[in-house]
Amino acid sequence: MILNSCSMSPQPLSPHNFRDLFDSVEAFLFDCDGVIWKGDELIDGVPQTLDMLRAKGKKLVFVTNNSWKSRSQYADKFRSLGISVSQDEIFSSSFAAAMYLKVNNFPSQNKVYVIGGEGILEELQLAGITAFGGPDDANKTIDLKQNCFVEHDKSVGAVVVGIDPNINYYKLQYGTLCIRENPGCLFIATNRDAVGHMTALQEWPGAGCMVAAICGSTQKEPVVVGKPSTFMMEFLLKKFNVSCSKMCMVGDRLDTDILFGQNAGCKTLLVLSGCTTQSALQDPSNNIQPDYYTSKISDMLDLSGA
Amino acid sequence: MILNSCSMSPQPLSPHNFRDLFDSVEAFLFDCDGVIWKGDELIDGVPQTLDMLRAKGKKLVFVTNNSWKSRSQYADKFRSLGISVSQDEIFSSSFAAAMYLKVNNFPSQNKVYVIGGEGILEELQLAGITAFGGPDDANKTIDLKQNCFVEHDKSVGAVVVGIDPNINYYKLQYGTLCIRENPGCLFIATNRDAVGHMTALQEWPGAGCMVAAICGSTQKEPVVVGKPSTFMMEFLLKKFNVSCSKMCMVGDRLDTDILFGQNAGCKTLLVLSGCTTQSALQDPSNNIQPDYYTSKISDMLDLSGA
Repeated sequence: MILNSCSMSPQPLSPHNFRDLFDSVEAFLFDCDGVIWKGDELIDGVPQTLDMLRAKGKKLVFVTNNSWKSRSQYADKFRSLGISVSQDEIFSSSFAAAMYLKVNNFPSQNKVYVIGGEGILEELQLAGITAFGGPDDANKTIDLKQNCFVEHDKSVGAVVVGIDPNINYYKLQYGTLCIRENPGCLFIATNRDAVGHMTALQEWPGAGCMVAAICGSTQKEPVVVGKPSTFMMEFLLKKFNVSCSKMCMVGDRLDTDILFGQNAGCKTLLVLSGCTTQSALQDPSNNIQPDYYTSKISDMLDLSGA
Repeated sequence: MILNSCSMSPQPLSPHNFRDLFDSVEAFLFDCDGVIWKGDELIDGVPQTLDMLRAKGKKLVFVTNNSWKSRSQYADKFRSLGISVSQDEIFSSSFAAAMYLKVNNFPSQNKVYVIGGEGILEELQLAGITAFGGPDDANKTIDLKQNCFVEHDKSVGAVVVGIDPNINYYKLQYGTLCIRENPGCLFIATNRDAVGHMTALQEWPGAGCMVAAICGSTQKEPVVVGKPSTFMMEFLLKKFNVSCSKMCMVGDRLDTDILFGQNAGCKTLLVLSGCTTQSALQDPSNNIQPDYYTSKISDMLDLSGA
């Protein structure tokens, strides 16, 4: 019993266990928000850590649940923060939503209605899928007069919902009508994060808020394509010739990042630079235990002796 | 087995069973939307039916989950439709929210943040509770720049969420901050209706949509004061000296009206003039069975022979 319980407890990253982890891992999968940056501010020591990992031959992958941007927009964000990352190393939930429709042979005559950001529309377009909504519906208002009626497109075959700071009643009604009234219409959530560091100064409602709103009005549950769903993993595995056991998922969230890593059979490292505190990790109510935890990814730089 | 199943099945209202129901009931509790009106349009035969019931000495109570209006605003709406109803006969979920705080001794130095309509603010004010938000925050916008920060009032001790066609990211953030960061802050839902006939022409997302959004961002569940919660029943019982078994709840929704009536020990009558179809009622997946069902409340007029 005692042995069991010890082996389940997450270990703080230390000079002793770091070498084992480092040597056994060929690819590090990083969450972005709370790991690489907070809002638009880089977390201390990140560029040097990524440089060290590349220099040691490790593959790097960035797996973000934030669907606001497309992969190319994320590559731009990395560049603007002084980090060189190729679009192929980025897996965003906006991309995952497009890939989900693609692998499920979404009919070419059908359209997608988007509650979320430009990034989703861009990834859908790249996948050859017709989509509308998103930022274009940001300023639509509803005045509930008696003749008020929202006409919806009967060819919408999927509603994709992600983080949307421009959420409004028009979008909620449009998405609800499509899901309730168009036969077979899919309801896809990029992710269900409750909150996120949309700005450096505080946390804000995440996609989990908008997704729940549509669950509330449709009484349906979505297909989730972002973490902790392992849907993105099959793309990762195709692109990088590495087995899951030689991957380490590094993230700041237990219920998305660490669960995603565990669901996929990866090693897992929790960093405390984002939304999870050490006391939340060690709280008896928490039942998601990473293999390792540390304060921030640059601890790996110190431990590597580089 | 067969007998059991027969006794569970809802009976269509008929000349045979109507007299039993009518004679045993002293008070009829009516839902409004889908029963009395659809949007701002009266359903056929309603005024005559209510007149007949009053003439026969029945007490009438109107129990609405729609929190957009206060009781006095509902009385105005009845008047504008040519029906005379006193404010004391109306129980709205906006009133229930105020009463919930009142009976739970909400501290007078605390405030309430409202995601919802003017009706909630008005009922809270009548109960002597300081409230803000609602329509005043309808036009607040959020631009997620790095210095963007919503400062929230630490004295907010409850967030009340109802139907809000002016829902926006500012309100979602404000309510989320209060619930997550103010110790002991209550999360109160006026109701969780998925959709409702906000206009005569179509259904629209109901309070269940906004409530779910806040559940999604806070990962907390609300206290629900509207139907099917029987919280309002203790006020009804105080005001009308009638036992529950001599009440009949008349509504168009299985999961709010009929369940509310059953939870309270009332007789129940489903009308098909609102959001429930006969096939939905008889679908094997439906496990909420009213005692009786009929197409609209004016069927009672015909059956009474008045």
